Amino acid sequence: MERSKGRPTKALVTREKISSAALKIVGVQGYEKLTMARVAREIGVGPSALYNHVHGKDDLLALVQDAVMAQVDTAALRAALAGDLSPGAALRTWARSYRDVFALHAPLVEVIATTPISGAPATQEMYELVARVLVAAGEPQARIIPRIIALESFIYGSSYDAHAPANIFDLPDIARVTAHSFAAAHAAFVADSAVSADAPSIDAALAPVSADAPASLASAGSGPVSGPDGGGNPFADTPFRLGLEALLADID
Amino acid sequence: MERSKGRPTKALVTREKISSAALKIVGVQGYEKLTMARVAREIGVGPSALYNHVHGKDDLLALVQDAVMAQVDTAALRAALAGDLSPGAALRTWARSYRDVFALHAPLVEVIATTPISGAPATQEMYELVARVLVAAGEPQARIIPRIIALESFIYGSSYDAHAPANIFDLPDIARVTAHSFAAAHAAFVADSAVSADAPSIDAALAPVSADAPASLASAGSGPVSGPDGGGNPFADTPFRLGLEALLADID
Repeated sequence: MERSKGRPTKALVTREKISSAALKIVGVQGYEKLTMARVAREIGVGPSALYNHVHGKDDLLALVQDAVMAQVDTAALRAALAGDLSPGAALRTWARSYRDVFALHAPLVEVIATTPISGAPATQEMYELVARVLVAAGEPQARIIPRIIALESFIYGSSYDAHAPANIFDLPDIARVTAHSFAAAHAAFVADSAVSADAPSIDAALAPVSADAPASLASAGSGPVSGPDGGGNPFADTPFRLGLEALLADID
Repeated sequence: MERSKGRPTKALVTREKISSAALKIVGVQGYEKLTMARVAREIGVGPSALYNHVHGKDDLLALVQDAVMAQVDTAALRAALAGDLSPGAALRTWARSYRDVFALHAPLVEVIATTPISGAPATQEMYELVARVLVAAGEPQARIIPRIIALESFIYGSSYDAHAPANIFDLPDIARVTAHSFAAAHAAFVADSAVSADAPSIDAALAPVSADAPASLASAGSGPVSGPDGGGNPFADTPFRLGLEALLADID
Protein backbone atom coordinates (compact mmCIF):
# COMPACT_ATOMS: atom_id res chain seq x y z
CA MET A 1 0.00 0.00 0.00
CA GLU A 2 1.34 3.35 -1.13
CA ARG A 3 0.19 5.14 2.00
CA SER A 4 2.00 3.00 4.53
CA LYS A 5 5.26 2.93 2.60
CA GLY A 6 7.00 5.62 4.57
CA ARG A 7 5.78 4.52 7.99
CA PRO A 8 8.41 3.40 10.47
CA THR A 9 8.37 -0.24 11.49
CA LYS A 10 7.66 0.72 15.07
CA ALA A 11 4.17 1.85 14.13
CA LEU A 12 3.10 -1.79 13.66
CA VAL A 13 0.64 -2.56 16.42
CA THR A 14 0.74 -5.78 18.41
CA ARG A 15 -0.91 -6.76 21.69
CA GLU A 16 2.55 -6.90 23.24
CA LYS A 17 3.25 -3.30 22.21
CA ILE A 18 -0.12 -2.19 23.51
CA SER A 19 0.54 -3.94 26.80
CA SER A 20 4.02 -2.39 27.18
CA ALA A 21 2.76 1.08 26.33
CA ALA A 22 -0.12 0.73 28.79
CA LEU A 23 2.21 -0.44 31.58
CA LYS A 24 4.51 2.50 30.89
CA ILE A 25 1.63 4.99 31.13
CA VAL A 26 0.37 3.34 34.32
CA GLY A 27 3.86 3.32 35.85
CA VAL A 28 4.51 6.99 35.19
CA GLN A 29 1.07 8.58 35.35
CA GLY A 30 -1.18 6.10 37.18
CA TYR A 31 -4.27 4.14 36.21
CA GLU A 32 -6.51 7.17 36.01
CA LYS A 33 -4.49 8.36 33.01
CA LEU A 34 -4.78 5.07 31.11
CA THR A 35 -6.90 5.66 28.00
CA MET A 36 -6.98 4.11 24.53
CA ALA A 37 -5.97 7.51 23.10
CA ARG A 38 -2.88 7.78 25.33
CA VAL A 39 -1.81 4.24 24.49
CA ALA A 40 -2.14 4.98 20.77
CA ARG A 41 -0.08 8.17 21.17
CA GLU A 42 2.60 6.26 23.11
CA ILE A 43 2.90 3.71 20.29
CA GLY A 44 2.72 6.43 17.66
CA VAL A 45 -0.45 5.41 15.85
CA GLY A 46 -4.00 6.67 15.63
CA PRO A 47 -6.52 5.37 18.18
CA SER A 48 -8.42 3.44 15.49
CA ALA A 49 -5.32 1.29 14.88
CA LEU A 50 -5.67 -0.12 18.41
CA TYR A 51 -9.16 -1.43 17.92
CA ASN A 52 -8.02 -4.28 15.67
CA HIS A 53 -6.18 -5.66 18.69
CA VAL A 54 -8.04 -4.44 21.77
CA HIS A 55 -11.80 -3.97 21.95
CA GLY A 56 -11.82 -1.08 24.40
CA LYS A 57 -10.84 -0.01 27.89
CA ASP A 58 -12.02 -3.23 29.60
CA ASP A 59 -10.06 -5.37 27.14
CA LEU A 60 -7.06 -3.10 27.60
CA LEU A 61 -7.24 -3.57 31.37
CA ALA A 62 -7.46 -7.36 30.92
CA LEU A 63 -4.33 -7.20 28.78
CA VAL A 64 -2.51 -5.13 31.41
CA GLN A 65 -3.74 -7.49 34.11
CA ASP A 66 -2.10 -10.48 32.43
CA ALA A 67 1.15 -8.52 31.99
CA VAL A 68 1.09 -7.56 35.67
CA MET A 69 0.33 -11.16 36.68
CA ALA A 70 3.48 -12.17 34.79
CA GLN A 71 5.41 -10.08 37.38
CA VAL A 72 4.31 -12.35 40.23
CA ASP A 73 7.31 -14.41 41.28
CA THR A 74 6.69 -18.09 40.51
CA ALA A 75 10.28 -19.26 41.09
CA ALA A 76 9.37 -20.77 44.46
CA LEU A 77 6.55 -22.77 42.87
CA ARG A 78 8.95 -24.14 40.26
CA ALA A 79 11.46 -24.96 43.00
CA ALA A 80 8.77 -26.92 44.87
CA LEU A 81 7.91 -28.89 41.73
CA ALA A 82 11.62 -29.68 41.31
CA GLY A 83 11.67 -31.00 44.87
CA ASP A 84 13.90 -28.20 46.15
CA LEU A 85 11.32 -26.52 48.41
CA SER A 86 8.28 -27.62 50.39
CA PRO A 87 4.86 -26.90 48.85
CA GLY A 88 3.91 -24.82 51.87
CA ALA A 89 7.02 -22.63 51.72
CA ALA A 90 6.53 -22.17 47.97
CA LEU A 91 2.88 -21.16 48.32
CA ARG A 92 3.74 -18.65 51.07
CA THR A 93 6.45 -17.05 48.93
CA TRP A 94 4.19 -16.95 45.89
CA ALA A 95 1.27 -15.46 47.85
CA ARG A 96 3.49 -12.72 49.27
CA SER A 97 4.78 -11.78 45.82
CA TYR A 98 1.20 -11.84 44.46
CA ARG A 99 0.13 -9.42 47.21
CA ASP A 100 3.16 -7.16 46.66
CA VAL A 101 2.57 -6.95 42.89
CA PHE A 102 -1.13 -6.15 43.21
CA ALA A 103 -0.51 -3.66 46.01
CA LEU A 104 1.34 -1.75 43.29
CA HIS A 105 -1.59 -2.25 40.90
CA ALA A 106 -4.56 -2.06 43.23
CA PRO A 107 -6.87 -0.62 40.56
CA LEU A 108 -6.51 -3.98 38.75
CA VAL A 109 -7.89 -5.98 41.67
CA GLU A 110 -11.49 -5.61 40.51
CA VAL A 111 -10.41 -6.54 36.99
CA ILE A 112 -8.49 -9.68 37.91
CA ALA A 113 -11.18 -10.79 40.34
CA THR A 114 -13.90 -10.72 37.70
CA THR A 115 -12.26 -11.25 34.29
CA PRO A 116 -12.26 -14.72 32.66
CA ILE A 117 -8.73 -16.09 32.33
CA SER A 118 -9.36 -17.55 28.86
CA GLY A 119 -7.43 -14.72 27.17
CA ALA A 120 -4.74 -14.42 29.84
CA PRO A 121 -1.85 -16.84 29.13
CA ALA A 122 0.46 -15.64 31.94
CA THR A 123 -2.38 -15.98 34.44
CA GLN A 124 -3.14 -19.49 33.18
CA GLU A 125 0.52 -20.47 33.50
CA MET A 126 0.63 -19.22 37.09
CA TYR A 127 -2.55 -21.11 38.03
CA GLU A 128 -1.15 -24.28 36.49
CA LEU A 129 1.94 -24.01 38.68
CA VAL A 130 -0.14 -23.37 41.80
CA ALA A 131 -2.44 -26.30 40.97
CA ARG A 132 0.54 -28.62 40.50
CA VAL A 133 2.07 -27.54 43.82
CA LEU A 134 -1.26 -28.14 45.57
CA VAL A 135 -1.47 -31.60 43.98
CA ALA A 136 2.05 -32.26 45.26
CA ALA A 137 0.91 -31.12 48.72
CA GLY A 138 -1.83 -33.76 48.64
CA GLU A 139 -4.77 -31.40 48.23
CA PRO A 140 -7.86 -33.27 46.99
CA GLN A 141 -8.70 -32.39 43.35
CA ALA A 142 -12.04 -30.74 44.13
CA ARG A 143 -10.49 -28.51 46.80
CA ILE A 144 -7.72 -27.04 44.63
CA ILE A 145 -9.81 -24.30 43.00
CA PRO A 146 -11.65 -23.31 46.22
CA ARG A 147 -8.24 -23.10 47.95
CA ILE A 148 -6.85 -20.85 45.18
CA ILE A 149 -9.94 -18.62 45.25
CA ALA A 150 -9.81 -18.32 49.04
CA LEU A 151 -6.12 -17.38 48.92
CA GLU A 152 -6.72 -14.88 46.12
CA SER A 153 -9.68 -13.27 47.90
CA PHE A 154 -7.42 -12.70 50.89
CA ILE A 155 -4.57 -11.44 48.69
CA TYR A 156 -6.85 -8.98 46.88
CA GLY A 157 -8.20 -7.52 50.11
CA SER A 158 -4.67 -7.37 51.50
CA SER A 159 -3.55 -5.46 48.42
CA TYR A 160 -6.02 -2.75 49.41
CA ASP A 161 -4.96 -2.89 53.04
CA ALA A 162 -1.38 -2.16 51.95
CA HIS A 163 -2.74 1.28 51.01
CA ALA A 164 -4.85 1.91 54.09
CA PRO A 165 -3.77 5.09 55.88
CA ALA A 166 -1.84 4.45 59.10
CA ASN A 167 -4.57 6.29 61.02
CA ILE A 168 -7.48 4.23 59.62
CA PHE A 169 -8.41 2.89 63.09
CA ASP A 170 -7.72 6.04 65.09
CA LEU A 171 -10.75 7.06 67.11
CA PRO A 172 -11.95 10.47 68.20
CA ASP A 173 -11.96 11.00 71.98
CA ILE A 174 -15.66 10.34 72.39
CA ALA A 175 -15.45 7.03 70.51
CA ARG A 176 -12.55 5.90 72.66
CA VAL A 177 -15.10 5.74 75.46
CA THR A 178 -17.94 4.04 73.60
CA ALA A 179 -15.59 1.70 71.72
CA HIS A 180 -13.19 1.08 74.58
CA SER A 181 -12.42 -2.57 73.82
CA PHE A 182 -11.56 -1.74 70.23
CA ALA A 183 -9.51 1.28 71.32
CA ALA A 184 -7.55 -0.87 73.81
CA ALA A 185 -6.92 -3.52 71.15
CA HIS A 186 -5.75 -0.82 68.76
CA ALA A 187 -3.34 0.64 71.30
CA ALA A 188 -1.94 -2.85 71.98
CA PHE A 189 -1.50 -3.51 68.26
CA VAL A 190 0.25 -0.19 67.65
CA ALA A 191 2.58 -0.77 70.62
CA ASP A 192 3.30 -4.31 69.44
CA SER A 193 4.00 -3.14 65.88
CA ALA A 194 6.45 -0.54 67.17
CA VAL A 195 8.57 -3.15 68.93
CA SER A 196 8.44 -5.64 66.05
CA ALA A 197 11.34 -4.03 64.24
CA ASP A 198 12.34 -7.42 62.86
CA ALA A 199 9.15 -7.74 60.82
CA PRO A 200 9.59 -7.07 57.08
CA SER A 201 8.66 -3.46 56.46
CA ILE A 202 5.88 -2.54 54.08
CA ASP A 203 8.35 -0.39 52.17
CA ALA A 204 10.35 -3.51 51.36
CA ALA A 205 7.15 -5.32 50.44
CA LEU A 206 6.14 -2.53 48.11
CA ALA A 207 9.50 -2.27 46.36
CA PRO A 208 9.49 -3.40 42.74
CA VAL A 209 9.35 -7.17 42.75
CA SER A 210 12.25 -7.82 40.41
CA ALA A 211 15.32 -6.05 39.12
CA ASP A 212 13.53 -5.81 35.76
CA ALA A 213 10.64 -3.83 37.15
CA PRO A 214 11.16 -0.09 36.82
CA ALA A 215 11.05 1.82 40.08
CA SER A 216 8.32 3.98 38.61
CA LEU A 217 5.92 1.05 38.98
CA ALA A 218 5.68 2.18 42.57
CA SER A 219 3.45 4.98 41.31
CA ALA A 220 1.06 2.66 39.53
CA GLY A 221 -1.89 3.23 41.82
CA SER A 222 -4.83 5.57 41.52
CA GLY A 223 -7.96 6.76 43.26
CA PRO A 224 -8.61 6.19 46.93
CA VAL A 225 -6.50 3.04 46.95
CA SER A 226 -3.09 4.50 46.38
CA GLY A 227 -1.18 7.70 46.16
CA PRO A 228 1.77 8.34 43.89
CA ASP A 229 4.04 6.62 46.41
CA GLY A 230 2.33 3.27 45.87
CA GLY A 231 0.88 3.21 49.35
CA GLY A 232 2.71 2.07 52.45
CA ASN A 233 0.50 1.16 55.40
CA PRO A 234 3.02 0.42 58.16
CA PHE A 235 0.50 -1.88 59.87
CA ALA A 236 -0.30 -4.14 56.90
CA ASP A 237 2.30 -6.82 57.37
CA THR A 238 1.22 -8.49 60.61
CA PRO A 239 -2.39 -9.05 59.46
CA PHE A 240 -1.15 -10.39 56.13
CA ARG A 241 1.17 -12.91 57.79
CA LEU A 242 -1.52 -13.92 60.29
CA GLY A 243 -4.13 -14.56 57.58
CA LEU A 244 -1.72 -16.31 55.22
CA GLU A 245 -0.53 -18.68 57.95
CA ALA A 246 -4.14 -19.53 58.83
CA LEU A 247 -5.09 -20.15 55.18
CA LEU A 248 -2.06 -22.41 54.65
CA ALA A 249 -1.90 -23.94 58.15
CA ASP A 250 -2.53 -27.47 56.83
CA ILE A 251 0.17 -27.32 54.12
CA ASP A 252 3.78 -27.89 55.11
CA MET B 1 -33.98 34.84 57.65
CA GLU B 2 -36.54 36.27 55.24
CA ARG B 3 -35.35 34.18 52.32
CA SER B 4 -35.84 30.81 53.92
CA LYS B 5 -39.25 31.60 55.35
CA GLY B 6 -41.31 29.90 52.66
CA ARG B 7 -39.11 26.84 52.22
CA PRO B 8 -40.63 23.48 53.11
CA THR B 9 -39.16 21.72 56.15
CA LYS B 10 -38.07 18.77 54.01
CA ALA B 11 -35.53 20.94 52.28
CA LEU B 12 -33.46 21.07 55.47
CA VAL B 13 -30.27 19.15 54.79
CA THR B 14 -28.79 16.70 57.28
CA ARG B 15 -26.12 14.04 56.87
CA GLU B 16 -28.81 11.43 57.50
CA LYS B 17 -30.91 12.79 54.63
CA ILE B 18 -27.89 12.87 52.35
CA SER B 19 -27.07 9.29 53.28
CA SER B 20 -30.64 8.08 52.68
CA ALA B 21 -30.86 9.87 49.35
CA ALA B 22 -27.51 8.45 48.25
CA LEU B 23 -28.51 4.90 49.22
CA LYS B 24 -31.76 5.30 47.31
CA ILE B 25 -29.92 6.43 44.17
CA VAL B 26 -27.41 3.61 44.51
CA GLY B 27 -30.18 1.04 45.05
CA VAL B 28 -32.17 2.07 42.01
CA GLN B 29 -29.52 3.31 39.58
CA GLY B 30 -26.20 1.90 40.79
CA TYR B 31 -23.00 3.48 42.04
CA GLU B 32 -22.04 4.91 38.66
CA LYS B 33 -25.03 7.25 38.91
CA LEU B 34 -24.16 8.56 42.37
CA THR B 35 -23.23 12.23 42.09
CA MET B 36 -23.53 15.21 44.39
CA ALA B 37 -25.95 16.79 41.89
CA ARG B 38 -28.26 13.77 41.89
CA VAL B 39 -28.26 13.60 45.69
CA ALA B 40 -29.16 17.29 45.86
CA ARG B 41 -32.00 16.79 43.38
CA GLU B 42 -33.28 13.78 45.34
CA ILE B 43 -33.43 15.88 48.53
CA GLY B 44 -34.86 18.85 46.67
CA VAL B 45 -32.10 21.39 47.26
CA GLY B 46 -29.37 22.98 45.20
CA PRO B 47 -25.98 21.20 45.03
CA SER B 48 -24.30 23.98 47.02
CA ALA B 49 -26.54 23.19 49.99
CA LEU B 50 -24.87 19.78 50.29
CA TYR B 51 -21.38 21.16 50.69
CA ASN B 52 -22.04 22.39 54.23
CA HIS B 53 -22.44 18.74 55.22
CA VAL B 54 -20.40 16.69 52.75
CA HIS B 55 -17.10 17.84 51.26
CA GLY B 56 -17.43 16.05 47.95
CA LYS B 57 -17.79 12.66 46.30
CA ASP B 58 -15.20 10.91 48.54
CA ASP B 59 -16.88 12.19 51.67
CA LEU B 60 -20.25 11.18 50.25
CA LEU B 61 -18.96 7.64 49.67
CA ALA B 62 -17.62 7.51 53.23
CA LEU B 63 -21.06 8.51 54.48
CA VAL B 64 -22.70 5.82 52.35
CA GLN B 65 -20.11 3.30 53.51
CA ASP B 66 -21.05 3.82 57.15
CA ALA B 67 -24.75 3.49 56.31
CA VAL B 68 -24.06 0.25 54.44
CA MET B 69 -21.93 -1.05 57.32
CA ALA B 70 -24.94 -0.51 59.57
CA GLN B 71 -26.70 -3.19 57.48
CA VAL B 72 -24.20 -5.87 58.53
CA ASP B 73 -25.98 -8.19 60.95
CA THR B 74 -24.40 -7.90 64.40
CA ALA B 75 -27.13 -9.81 66.26
CA ALA B 76 -24.92 -12.91 66.56
CA LEU B 77 -22.11 -10.83 68.11
CA ARG B 78 -24.51 -9.43 70.67
CA ALA B 79 -25.80 -12.94 71.39
CA ALA B 80 -22.24 -14.13 72.01
CA LEU B 81 -21.63 -11.25 74.43
CA ALA B 82 -24.84 -12.23 76.24
CA GLY B 83 -23.52 -15.79 76.53
CA ASP B 84 -26.12 -17.24 74.18
CA LEU B 85 -23.75 -18.20 71.35
CA SER B 86 -20.12 -19.23 71.08
CA PRO B 87 -17.67 -16.53 69.91
CA GLY B 88 -16.69 -18.67 66.91
CA ALA B 89 -20.27 -19.18 65.74
CA ALA B 90 -20.96 -15.47 66.20
CA LEU B 91 -17.90 -14.41 64.18
CA ARG B 92 -18.79 -16.82 61.35
CA THR B 93 -22.33 -15.46 61.15
CA TRP B 94 -21.11 -11.86 61.28
CA ALA B 95 -18.44 -12.48 58.59
CA ARG B 96 -20.98 -14.05 56.26
CA SER B 97 -23.36 -11.13 56.66
CA TYR B 98 -20.46 -8.69 56.10
CA ARG B 99 -19.56 -10.49 52.87
CA ASP B 100 -23.19 -10.58 51.70
CA VAL B 101 -23.72 -6.87 52.36
CA PHE B 102 -20.55 -5.80 50.56
CA ALA B 103 -21.19 -8.19 47.67
CA LEU B 104 -24.22 -5.95 47.09
CA HIS B 105 -22.04 -2.84 47.44
CA ALA B 106 -18.79 -3.98 45.87
CA PRO B 107 -17.88 -0.48 44.63
CA LEU B 108 -17.57 0.49 48.31
CA VAL B 109 -14.88 -2.11 49.04
CA GLU B 110 -12.05 0.22 48.07
CA VAL B 111 -13.64 2.98 50.13
CA ILE B 112 -14.09 0.96 53.30
CA ALA B 113 -10.65 -0.61 52.99
CA THR B 114 -8.90 2.75 52.90
CA THR B 115 -11.10 5.28 54.73
CA PRO B 116 -10.38 6.20 58.38
CA ILE B 117 -13.21 5.12 60.66
CA SER B 118 -13.07 8.28 62.75
CA GLY B 119 -16.19 9.70 61.07
CA ALA B 120 -18.04 6.40 60.81
CA PRO B 121 -20.04 5.69 63.99
CA ALA B 122 -21.79 2.53 62.75
CA THR B 123 -18.46 1.09 61.68
CA GLN B 124 -16.93 1.92 65.07
CA GLU B 125 -19.85 0.25 66.82
CA MET B 126 -19.42 -2.91 64.76
CA TYR B 127 -15.68 -3.05 65.44
CA GLU B 128 -16.29 -2.63 69.16
CA LEU B 129 -18.63 -5.64 69.15
CA VAL B 130 -16.14 -7.75 67.18
CA ALA B 131 -13.31 -6.72 69.51
CA ARG B 132 -15.35 -7.64 72.58
CA VAL B 133 -16.24 -11.06 71.10
CA LEU B 134 -12.57 -11.68 70.32
CA VAL B 135 -11.65 -10.73 73.89
CA ALA B 136 -14.29 -13.19 75.09
CA ALA B 137 -12.72 -15.83 72.83
CA GLY B 138 -9.39 -15.32 74.59
CA GLU B 139 -7.62 -13.57 71.72
CA PRO B 140 -4.51 -11.71 72.97
CA GLN B 141 -4.99 -7.90 72.89
CA ALA B 142 -2.31 -7.24 70.28
CA ARG B 143 -3.76 -9.86 67.91
CA ILE B 144 -7.31 -8.50 67.85
CA ILE B 145 -6.74 -5.84 65.20
CA PRO B 146 -4.58 -8.05 62.94
CA ARG B 147 -7.28 -10.73 63.19
CA ILE B 148 -10.00 -8.25 62.21
CA ILE B 149 -7.92 -6.91 59.29
CA ALA B 150 -7.14 -10.43 58.04
CA LEU B 151 -10.82 -11.37 58.18
CA GLU B 152 -11.84 -8.16 56.44
CA SER B 153 -9.23 -8.54 53.70
CA PHE B 154 -10.69 -11.97 52.98
CA ILE B 155 -14.25 -10.65 53.13
CA TYR B 156 -13.48 -7.80 50.70
CA GLY B 157 -11.87 -10.11 48.14
CA SER B 158 -14.77 -12.53 48.58
CA SER B 159 -17.22 -9.71 47.91
CA TYR B 160 -15.62 -9.36 44.50
CA ASP B 161 -15.59 -13.11 43.94
CA ALA B 162 -19.35 -13.15 44.49
CA HIS B 163 -19.49 -11.26 41.19
CA ALA B 164 -16.98 -13.32 39.23
CA PRO B 165 -18.55 -14.77 36.08
CA ALA B 166 -19.25 -18.51 36.33
CA ASN B 167 -16.87 -19.09 33.39
CA ILE B 168 -13.94 -17.18 34.94
CA PHE B 169 -11.72 -20.32 35.02
CA ASP B 170 -12.86 -21.88 31.72
CA LEU B 171 -9.91 -22.55 29.46
CA PRO B 172 -9.67 -22.58 25.69
CA ASP B 173 -8.84 -26.03 24.20
CA ILE B 174 -5.16 -25.29 23.75
CA ALA B 175 -4.75 -24.18 27.37
CA ARG B 176 -6.45 -27.32 28.60
CA VAL B 177 -3.33 -29.13 27.35
CA THR B 178 -0.70 -26.73 28.69
CA ALA B 179 -2.55 -26.17 31.97
CA HIS B 180 -3.78 -29.73 32.42
CA SER B 181 -3.48 -29.89 36.22
CA PHE B 182 -5.47 -26.69 36.61
CA ALA B 183 -8.04 -27.88 34.06
CA ALA B 184 -8.45 -31.19 35.91
CA ALA B 185 -8.84 -29.38 39.22
CA HIS B 186 -11.42 -27.07 37.66
CA ALA B 187 -13.43 -29.99 36.27
CA ALA B 188 -13.38 -31.68 39.69
CA PHE B 189 -14.52 -28.48 41.40
CA VAL B 190 -17.38 -27.93 38.93
CA ALA B 191 -18.51 -31.55 39.30
CA ASP B 192 -18.30 -31.28 43.08
CA SER B 193 -20.24 -28.00 43.12
CA ALA B 194 -23.00 -29.57 41.02
CA VAL B 195 -23.59 -32.32 43.57
CA SER B 196 -23.41 -30.02 46.60
CA ALA B 197 -27.04 -29.03 46.31
CA ASP B 198 -27.21 -28.64 50.09
CA ALA B 199 -24.75 -25.72 50.05
CA PRO B 200 -26.36 -22.31 50.56
CA SER B 201 -26.90 -20.78 47.13
CA ILE B 202 -25.27 -17.51 46.21
CA ASP B 203 -28.73 -16.14 45.37
CA ALA B 204 -29.70 -16.62 48.99
CA ALA B 205 -26.42 -15.07 50.08
CA LEU B 206 -27.05 -12.07 47.88
CA ALA B 207 -30.60 -11.49 49.04
CA PRO B 208 -31.13 -8.39 51.19
CA VAL B 209 -29.80 -9.15 54.63
CA SER B 210 -32.75 -7.98 56.66
CA ALA B 211 -36.42 -7.38 56.24
CA ASP B 212 -35.70 -3.66 56.47
CA ALA B 213 -33.44 -3.64 53.45
CA PRO B 214 -35.30 -2.79 50.24
CA ALA B 215 -35.09 -5.43 47.51
CA SER B 216 -33.76 -2.79 45.15
CA LEU B 217 -30.46 -2.88 47.04
CA ALA B 218 -29.72 -5.97 44.99
CA SER B 219 -29.00 -3.65 42.08
CA ALA B 220 -26.50 -1.59 44.00
CA GLY B 221 -23.42 -2.70 42.10
CA SER B 222 -21.60 -1.04 39.22
CA GLY B 223 -18.74 -1.42 36.80
CA PRO B 224 -16.99 -4.69 36.19
CA VAL B 225 -17.83 -5.94 39.64
CA SER B 226 -21.55 -6.31 39.37
CA GLY B 227 -24.44 -6.18 37.00
CA PRO B 228 -27.89 -4.86 37.80
CA ASP B 229 -28.75 -8.24 39.39
CA GLY B 230 -26.15 -7.77 42.12
CA GLY B 231 -23.91 -10.56 40.84
CA GLY B 232 -24.36 -14.26 41.56
CA ASN B 233 -21.26 -16.41 40.99
CA PRO B 234 -22.56 -19.94 41.62
CA PHE B 235 -19.06 -21.08 42.64
CA ALA B 236 -18.38 -18.43 45.29
CA ASP B 237 -19.75 -20.19 48.33
CA THR B 238 -17.36 -23.12 48.76
CA PRO B 239 -14.19 -20.96 48.64
CA PHE B 240 -15.76 -18.51 51.09
CA ARG B 241 -16.60 -21.24 53.58
CA LEU B 242 -13.17 -22.84 53.15
CA GLY B 243 -11.31 -19.57 53.80
CA LEU B 244 -13.53 -18.49 56.66
CA GLU B 245 -13.11 -21.82 58.46
CA ALA B 246 -9.33 -21.58 58.08
CA LEU B 247 -9.21 -18.00 59.36
CA LEU B 248 -11.36 -18.89 62.40
CA ALA B 249 -10.07 -22.46 62.93
CA ASP B 250 -8.69 -21.61 66.38
CA ILE B 251 -11.88 -19.96 67.67
CA ASP B 252 -14.73 -22.18 68.89
